[in-house]
Amino acid sequence: MASFTFSPLTPTAFLTRSAAVFADRVAVVDGERRFTYAEFADRAQRLAGALVGLGVQPGDRVAALCANSSAMLELHNGVPWAGAVLVPLNSRLSGEELEYILGHAGASVLVADAAFADVAAKVAASVGIRLVVANGSGDSTDGNSGDDYEQLLDGASPLARDCPDETGLLALNYTSGTTGRPKGVMYHHRGAYLQALAMALHSGMGPGSHYLWTLPMFHCDGWCYPWAVTAAGATHVCLPKVDPTVIWGLLRDEGITHYSAAPTVLNMIASAKEAESGPLPQKVQVQTGGAPPTPTLLSRMSDLNMNVTHLYGLTETYGPAMINQWRPEWDDLPGDQQADLKSRQGVGNVVADRARVVADDGSDVPADGQTIGEISLRGNDVMLGYYEDQAATDAATVTGTGEQAGLGWFRTGDLGVVHPDGYVEIRDRSKDIIISGGENISSVEVERALDAHPSVLESAVVAEPHEKWGEVPVAHVTLREGAEVTDEELAAHVRERLAPFKVPKVFHYGELPKTSTGKVQKKELRARAQQGSGSSS
Amino acid sequence: MASFTFSPLTPTAFLTRSAAVFADRVAVVDGERRFTYAEFADRAQRLAGALVGLGVQPGDRVAALCANSSAMLELHNGVPWAGAVLVPLNSRLSGEELEYILGHAGASVLVADAAFADVAAKVAASVGIRLVVANGSGDSTDGNSGDDYEQLLDGASPLARDCPDETGLLALNYTSGTTGRPKGVMYHHRGAYLQALAMALHSGMGPGSHYLWTLPMFHCDGWCYPWAVTAAGATHVCLPKVDPTVIWGLLRDEGITHYSAAPTVLNMIASAKEAESGPLPQKVQVQTGGAPPTPTLLSRMSDLNMNVTHLYGLTETYGPAMINQWRPEWDDLPGDQQADLKSRQGVGNVVADRARVVADDGSDVPADGQTIGEISLRGNDVMLGYYEDQAATDAATVTGTGEQAGLGWFRTGDLGVVHPDGYVEIRDRSKDIIISGGENISSVEVERALDAHPSVLESAVVAEPHEKWGEVPVAHVTLREGAEVTDEELAAHVRERLAPFKVPKVFHYGELPKTSTGKVQKKELRARAQQGSGSSS
Repeated sequence: MASFTFSPLTPTAFLTRSAAVFADRVAVVDGERRFTYAEFADRAQRLAGALVGLGVQPGDRVAALCANSSAMLELHNGVPWAGAVLVPLNSRLSGEELEYILGHAGASVLVADAAFADVAAKVAASVGIRLVVANGSGDSTDGNSGDDYEQLLDGASPLARDCPDETGLLALNYTSGTTGRPKGVMYHHRGAYLQALAMALHSGMGPGSHYLWTLPMFHCDGWCYPWAVTAAGATHVCLPKVDPTVIWGLLRDEGITHYSAAPTVLNMIASAKEAESGPLPQKVQVQTGGAPPTPTLLSRMSDLNMNVTHLYGLTETYGPAMINQWRPEWDDLPGDQQADLKSRQGVGNVVADRARVVADDGSDVPADGQTIGEISLRGNDVMLGYYEDQAATDAATVTGTGEQAGLGWFRTGDLGVVHPDGYVEIRDRSKDIIISGGENISSVEVERALDAHPSVLESAVVAEPHEKWGEVPVAHVTLREGAEVTDEELAAHVRERLAPFKVPKVFHYGELPKTSTGKVQKKELRARAQQGSGSSS
Repeated sequence: MASFTFSPLTPTAFLTRSAAVFADRVAVVDGERRFTYAEFADRAQRLAGALVGLGVQPGDRVAALCANSSAMLELHNGVPWAGAVLVPLNSRLSGEELEYILGHAGASVLVADAAFADVAAKVAASVGIRLVVANGSGDSTDGNSGDDYEQLLDGASPLARDCPDETGLLALNYTSGTTGRPKGVMYHHRGAYLQALAMALHSGMGPGSHYLWTLPMFHCDGWCYPWAVTAAGATHVCLPKVDPTVIWGLLRDEGITHYSAAPTVLNMIASAKEAESGPLPQKVQVQTGGAPPTPTLLSRMSDLNMNVTHLYGLTETYGPAMINQWRPEWDDLPGDQQADLKSRQGVGNVVADRARVVADDGSDVPADGQTIGEISLRGNDVMLGYYEDQAATDAATVTGTGEQAGLGWFRTGDLGVVHPDGYVEIRDRSKDIIISGGENISSVEVERALDAHPSVLESAVVAEPHEKWGEVPVAHVTLREGAEVTDEELAAHVRERLAPFKVPKVFHYGELPKTSTGKVQKKELRARAQQGSGSSS
């Protein structure tokens, strides 16, 4: 057999190609700074060289605490080029949570944007690892306690190690999951490569596209768009935080053609003052996920010349393993019918295996739009497993029956139905996950924090619908006999341990409803929450 | 490690997905017949079942002598689903050539469209293999000597064997190559899967696209578009032969958005009477290859609302491994400058490795637009090698130096330069290949046929530019002492052995110019041909 075939599939290949093909085209816009594709690749390669200079070995973990910055894009390529594994950190997490993840991942270096330098210095010191601070302005970061990112790059030689194994570890994306402590979802090169191609193809991106970074890059590696946008030879437009005024400025001035965001963010954009100046001249393709877009939102977006595609996935599936694949003939349906169709989670994307909805025995439920089963996924864009957590990996695996016998499928925890046309729709989300502003909150994790308070006997946390955030966590607490506590005291107690967005917005006190076997009836609590309890502020 | 990942990459996965997602959408238009994606998949699966019923075992070769028909699309999926290897046959070849290929490939079944039933029956009988005849009209093929395709499908159970190994053999595409006898280029599942994704992405295809089958599917598996169009969920519009009137009818009536063809075919389309009715309402993306499109052609196509992308590749590279990747900023240049830029062969496509131009020592030539080297390719969309021809495979391999040391690269035989922007342009095509009407002709093969004539002492065949066909073969012949022969006699002699398009259009008689070591100086003969010798009819 000839040896001229079988290059490993690795998502850094897209930057290699675009650096050669689009050398002098703008790759990255980050505030006042613009980098061409040649510069982007050179910076990422010098980052790889610098990391090796800091002692990073192949397989080592390099963590990133960054906004949607050029440094974060460079990390998505430079870390694999150093042979290392990227660990993107959610910048909304508490110091304690960040320390847990850094420790669990065994990261040896932390790269942080200057905006997060203080917390980064604290956690890096606590865990005892090297800190590199990237200052978006390009100024020196004197006064911070870490190495300066730009200085390291200036002093480093470019490096781009070959990917030795496409099924090797590329990144660890920590997720709250359903069971308390964050779990490290293992991504491999092959999966990210294919998922990036799928995102580029489904979004219809090309060299003329401009992608606005509204979606955090620390979420599922920005759903693999750091590589997808690069594969298309399009322009990354960075955005440090979601600010509708800034977003509208970029939509109009940078000719944005694509962006991704949760429906809550889309609502902010669509209802901003700046939206009143009318539709954009260019068609904008918008990817959304985390919750179905509402008919009102879809109609408003359409008026602004923005076409919304609904995607579905989890951290475990490189982001959107499923897509509400739109059919051209649906364009002719009335708006409310289109909204109904678009609220469905859909089908596997072009590189994914078929999405299944399975009954308890592992068989497929009938495609009747009524029989509920668990959405189960498999394929190249499903994780390798949870890092150093075989028990959790095993627990997430369902063994199929019939033609699927012997094969493991990833259980999403989300319950849904299959419509007669084969499209999947979620009927009941995983019971222990609350999605607030696009962020996952593990109710178990919040309960654990509450239960650690000396006055709390037991607690149950459930989601309550919320106009702005989609959902917010609401706590039901049983106090110990004779104990007294205020809402503020419990909230402060949780805030010490967890990220602010995880703190319950409402507290109810009293007995928890339980089954005859003593299990808390969350369903009952959720039913109460659905009726609302006034927390719409 | 969990078992829910690493599905093999096989291009039949796209039909599996589209059959589920787009079940009731039109997948194939073939004359009066229309098949939905559910029907297309079902027919391909029943074809797989039927082939197994005929005794086809995994790894067996199944040959196809078909026009661009629904049967040929079904073969591209049904043969792999039977676990077998597809051998697409060029319907323009002579019976003798077809017999050679069937014998070399060791095919056990030949599937032919009814239009080719006679020659198919002859060669199948001669080689001693089973014949299946597909009648596009759906009528029985009683009277032909083979099994009836539709009857076989009706009687078969659907079958879709799993791809056991993505690097396993998917297809054998026979090419004239440079050295006489056709060679069987080995395609694997992984390469075709990735190439199909690349074609879909670069062409910007989606579920609303309509792809017109002007390009023969027997050429490099239709450059992998049988799978690419299916991946996009677009509609295949079959075309049994290139007829400008029919093409214009489909362009206007079927809302064609994409097609691929050699510049000679584009010229026929652009200069047809029907083109005079003016531009199409829809934008049509056209892929071309085999020769650079001329400025006149590009300008004419643009007037018709057709955007031409220039691609480059060989049978050995699943078709277009390279693309003239267009940059949006070039749209603003004057037309002649755009044509200059578009005449270049370009860069590796999104799934290809970097295209190199190498000097004799295997090192890269400088990107100066002047230094000539050989275009060399590597990656997932380069063949496994030539079937049962290790010597030819070895001969096509160049070993790199420097950072590429130890790696084998496929030598295209085409000489080119690298421009300062990294784009490759061919300066001198492989000396022994003549491209006439998009078909490759091996000059060596034609010489061998000529030399077999009793009056011929030796011969040399070279390309001469031709207005309609791009190039035509021209023969330079030295007769044996005292022998006499006419042009007509030699042409008839060649026509007995080779396909009609390979027969030299002009014959010159006399001594052949030779080097001091006795090698024929084809360069000298080509120079004479460049000056033209009147064969423009």
